[in-house]
Amino acid sequence: MGRVTERRRVLHIDGGVATERPDTLAGEEPLEIRVGGRAIAVTMRTPGDDFDLVAGFAWTEGLIADADHLVGLRYCAGADDEGLNTYNVIDLVLSDNAPRPDVNATRTFYTTSSCGVCGKASIDAIKVRSRFDLHDDRTTVTPGLLSVLPGKLRDAQKVFEQTGGLHAAALFSPDADVLVLREDVGRHNAVDKVIGWALRDKRLPLTGTVLMVSGRASFELVQKAYVAGIPVLAAVSAPSTLAVEFADSVGMTLVGFLRGQSMNVYCGADRIVVEALT
Amino acid sequence: MGRVTERRRVLHIDGGVATERPDTLAGEEPLEIRVGGRAIAVTMRTPGDDFDLVAGFAWTEGLIADADHLVGLRYCAGADDEGLNTYNVIDLVLSDNAPRPDVNATRTFYTTSSCGVCGKASIDAIKVRSRFDLHDDRTTVTPGLLSVLPGKLRDAQKVFEQTGGLHAAALFSPDADVLVLREDVGRHNAVDKVIGWALRDKRLPLTGTVLMVSGRASFELVQKAYVAGIPVLAAVSAPSTLAVEFADSVGMTLVGFLRGQSMNVYCGADRIVVEALT
Repeated sequence: MGRVTERRRVLHIDGGVATERPDTLAGEEPLEIRVGGRAIAVTMRTPGDDFDLVAGFAWTEGLIADADHLVGLRYCAGADDEGLNTYNVIDLVLSDNAPRPDVNATRTFYTTSSCGVCGKASIDAIKVRSRFDLHDDRTTVTPGLLSVLPGKLRDAQKVFEQTGGLHAAALFSPDADVLVLREDVGRHNAVDKVIGWALRDKRLPLTGTVLMVSGRASFELVQKAYVAGIPVLAAVSAPSTLAVEFADSVGMTLVGFLRGQSMNVYCGADRIVVEALT
Repeated sequence: MGRVTERRRVLHIDGGVATERPDTLAGEEPLEIRVGGRAIAVTMRTPGDDFDLVAGFAWTEGLIADADHLVGLRYCAGADDEGLNTYNVIDLVLSDNAPRPDVNATRTFYTTSSCGVCGKASIDAIKVRSRFDLHDDRTTVTPGLLSVLPGKLRDAQKVFEQTGGLHAAALFSPDADVLVLREDVGRHNAVDKVIGWALRDKRLPLTGTVLMVSGRASFELVQKAYVAGIPVLAAVSAPSTLAVEFADSVGMTLVGFLRGQSMNVYCGADRIVVEALT
């Protein structure tokens, strides 16, 4: 499809002097997600690894509750002005015994609590949905291991260097090997692509792994990591209040500002084996 | 409310040595948006300027088509476990003559085209919704003016320096004065807060202004700027393919990688007055 990136002429200006030159842009296209033929959502994403994205979205948003319920993924017909398939509509085929998802599941789960919508209600709603308990995960990591992850993430990023426009998410083994890396204009999509890869490879729960993301750690990213059973989430930048509260309440280790030898551990510090505590 | 930021003890590790110290986190809480009492959406946002956020969301997502249709905004009752109002539910009150929004408007507009969901359909759907035509906007800016915006954006950011965790969006006058700056964990929320401020101040369309954002320029940000009538959008980082295609098709000037004297003009270069073209 060749739509992951696109070359385009731009006017580059430096010190008031303008020059025309080519630039490489990160691709962005809508993707319509259907479950059993019914449209559920449209997400703006970078084309590529679309089956992983749809499988991951279905899992992390609670549309399927068992990996065996996913029996197929297919691009639907749907043509642009020139009669070409857009590859922007994917249908997730459920097994006969799978419950049909509530089409409103993704938009109303925050509001089902009797309270006036708050962080606690959001956390509780997602806790109920998860099949995995991180408190059972005995993974430990050292600061030395964590410190090599940002470099490995950058080395593995294929598209970022060309465009500067993509978020990355990578899943690491306990030995800091890259199990999978995915990129997207949307950081939630990059994480869904990683989790969808794992779901399709029958690897859930992702016990013993570390998920590293290139940007910030929001509540949404923590909840996605949680429902995939990931015990350690590390981010290059800052977490939010609710991301920390949620990670703390479910027993996840959350590391932020991971840059070289420096990092902040926001919760779940019992998984971090440090040499000295001053 | 004091929820824009929160202090928290973290374990800071550097070179394998751990120290406990306080850290300031960016606030994140759910906000339920209602129109005429009916729940429309829940967004995760940083508390603060919530009325601007709701007004801006209603405008940029097409829930209201006339500023006069917005006659009030109010926090709904809704209490947490301790009986305190969460301030996380806001109802937008419509005038009697305002059309009631289609509750599905925000989720289905990409899919109404007969084509198989593509960037062009997304662009066309939003073009139809906008009341303003940027082709009429004769704003011009110089590279010298644009080059001072990132510094002014950073200087005006109150929360970012403490947390490193917030996106910022600022609206500038043709003389590079900051008209308004808003921050949020979600970049789309920061832009909605800016546009909602303008809507409530009866300033739409935002003819002659420059919107500067701290991160990347996605399709979503360009469409929000477009429906507010903003002629120039400048971003610190990269735009996506669809952001550029959309901006180009509606006559918007899109500047990316704006850092000091250096910048890329992706489209609408006729508004940029350069000294020399080599």
